[in-house]
Amino acid sequence: MPTISDKGALMPESPIRKLVPYAEKAYKEGKTVYHLNIGQPDIKTPQIALDAVKVHSLNILAYTRSEGSEEYRQKIANYYAKNDIYVKHDDIIVTTGGSEALLFTFGSIMDVDDEIIIPEPFYANYNGFSTASGVKVVPVISKIEDNFALPAIEEFEKLITPKTKAILICNPGNPTGYLYSKEEIQKLAAIVKKHDLFLIADEVYREFAYDGNKHYSIMQDFGLEDYAIVIDSVSKRYSMCGARIGCLVSKNKDVIKTALKFAQARLSPPTLAQIASEAALETPQSYFDEVITEYVERRNTLITELQKIEGVKVAKPKGAFYCIAELPVANSDDFAQWLLEEFDVNGETIMVAPAAGFYSTPGVGLNQIRIAYVLNKESLIKSVNILKEALKAYNN
Amino acid sequence: MPTISDKGALMPESPIRKLVPYAEKAYKEGKTVYHLNIGQPDIKTPQIALDAVKVHSLNILAYTRSEGSEEYRQKIANYYAKNDIYVKHDDIIVTTGGSEALLFTFGSIMDVDDEIIIPEPFYANYNGFSTASGVKVVPVISKIEDNFALPAIEEFEKLITPKTKAILICNPGNPTGYLYSKEEIQKLAAIVKKHDLFLIADEVYREFAYDGNKHYSIMQDFGLEDYAIVIDSVSKRYSMCGARIGCLVSKNKDVIKTALKFAQARLSPPTLAQIASEAALETPQSYFDEVITEYVERRNTLITELQKIEGVKVAKPKGAFYCIAELPVANSDDFAQWLLEEFDVNGETIMVAPAAGFYSTPGVGLNQIRIAYVLNKESLIKSVNILKEALKAYNN
Repeated sequence: MPTISDKGALMPESPIRKLVPYAEKAYKEGKTVYHLNIGQPDIKTPQIALDAVKVHSLNILAYTRSEGSEEYRQKIANYYAKNDIYVKHDDIIVTTGGSEALLFTFGSIMDVDDEIIIPEPFYANYNGFSTASGVKVVPVISKIEDNFALPAIEEFEKLITPKTKAILICNPGNPTGYLYSKEEIQKLAAIVKKHDLFLIADEVYREFAYDGNKHYSIMQDFGLEDYAIVIDSVSKRYSMCGARIGCLVSKNKDVIKTALKFAQARLSPPTLAQIASEAALETPQSYFDEVITEYVERRNTLITELQKIEGVKVAKPKGAFYCIAELPVANSDDFAQWLLEEFDVNGETIMVAPAAGFYSTPGVGLNQIRIAYVLNKESLIKSVNILKEALKAYNN
Repeated sequence: MPTISDKGALMPESPIRKLVPYAEKAYKEGKTVYHLNIGQPDIKTPQIALDAVKVHSLNILAYTRSEGSEEYRQKIANYYAKNDIYVKHDDIIVTTGGSEALLFTFGSIMDVDDEIIIPEPFYANYNGFSTASGVKVVPVISKIEDNFALPAIEEFEKLITPKTKAILICNPGNPTGYLYSKEEIQKLAAIVKKHDLFLIADEVYREFAYDGNKHYSIMQDFGLEDYAIVIDSVSKRYSMCGARIGCLVSKNKDVIKTALKFAQARLSPPTLAQIASEAALETPQSYFDEVITEYVERRNTLITELQKIEGVKVAKPKGAFYCIAELPVANSDDFAQWLLEEFDVNGETIMVAPAAGFYSTPGVGLNQIRIAYVLNKESLIKSVNILKEALKAYNN
């Protein structure tokens, strides 16, 4: 009998997926489960995007160009210009979600055994794409005590080897909610230029910057034309995670030319979703204003409630819709499972994402969880109360 | 300045893409170009699939399960049962096109420097996915004189090394149109069992079997439960190439479990396209009957016309909608470019796919082209006449 590959064996399982059987057990027992574990927002997709596919006039659902239509890419470039990011349509390759933009980027700039430095905790699937590409993730720890700010630049320098090809940040961060300052991006710009590395920024949460803080893109005025690769997606911006449309943006022509070959191999991004995504670009500002207001209220509610629980430490997020909370438990994997299997308050419990899966360093983040505030305030208040009662019960 | 990866440099460019600038030049000069070069059929997508997305009732375009919904996979299993392929929904992972099914398969069963044996000429993007996965394609030549039948099994055995992990076939074949017989599948079954290899079959053209010939799937009664991996797609079956929905099918639990981890890393296949693809499964048989009748007529027209040209050799396809033709030219790359740049009959010319890109062995297939009969009969007759006149002019 033939066997699977070493790479296949090494591929990480989703840190949340492991809990799914316990969640299913909880449903069967009639429990209500509040899902704080996933990045699937409950926010409505803009009507204009939903309607666009309803009125399509296609007779043949044909391939599009591998890099996306020129018209759509031109419109994406216009969107960027409104965000002080000046790129041409030729600097953009439309991808099947931000996921594929990451895959093309990793393939285009790294060979097997090359290294990529990522501040941790980081989006768990960076591990998956690294394993799939045979690339080694070198983590640099950012700390809850510092609100998950950029680690000191010396910490990066210590980790740079001849195998290092890139630094990857997520800004605003999943799972930390941290928003990098202009000064932090400048420090990163200096280090990648000094060491001839690519700087990859996953900016899919660009719009989700709170408290008057501005989002700085690495494509802005940092002199990173040859170094910067931006990963983007419509998933969170327009609450259309299921579209699977994203893009890769770079002013480095070799990167675009190379990524295009990966894009050609898979023929084209999904056509219907491109129709919806192109229409989504016409979403009125009022939509975003409402969404941001909603998320800020949710965050404030969540953080206020969490801070009331003794022994819970939380970093206040400045963006995205996640936060990391440190709990008075030894192992949040066990605790998360216990929440689903053993605990409820009047038939209700919560599902959280154990944070260990967001760290690459073994043994770190074991007492942390990621909470996605993708539920309404009422549900968040109930959820935090369940967490409070659960911690009492668990620690007795 | 940082540089791209070795892998990125090695990624092949699409064999057709190179000609695109010359086609664009031809348009600018006002020429009509008949596209015999691409696998994008002109056949209408079933109305039921086009309509399904028009009446969607989604408020949030959300992720689906990474492996596709249980309901959709159950329906796919029912479709297979009608084709004498007995699998469960758990044996199926829904993918973003057949392309992603190939990518997941390569990642799940092969490591860097592993080898995969593929009869050539083969679908050019197998090269792309192999390069992206760091895998070495070992070609075994099938010949136009044999109508591109399965090469003698000894030819395969000669090529098997400790690094060999799989044999990949495309059945019916792109670009050959060859349909493997039951006996040929039995031979392949015997060799993969003897050497503990996976047998991967790209069966996306399953329905396109002509002249009363039956398509045999490797998932049928060949005893390949542990060995067989089927690549499938809605692209050609329902003329919905732009949906980007396919699937990977295997009864080998380790393969499915491993491929699922790759699927989880990219979150989910596109939601809207899954709605269309699920609806497409209800397409009436009359649709396929009409399509097959149309393709058989096109094929007959094309082959008859091609055989009238002196010096042209053609293998009669038994399936799919491609054929390979050998031309009295030294280099079909140059000839294809010349057709676009220099030649026309009353302002009309043709674009063909030079066949060298479908071979892995250097220098083979240089005098061959692939013709996709995805145009109506009238256009095909005109196209072959253009080819005839072009060959006369080119060889003078």
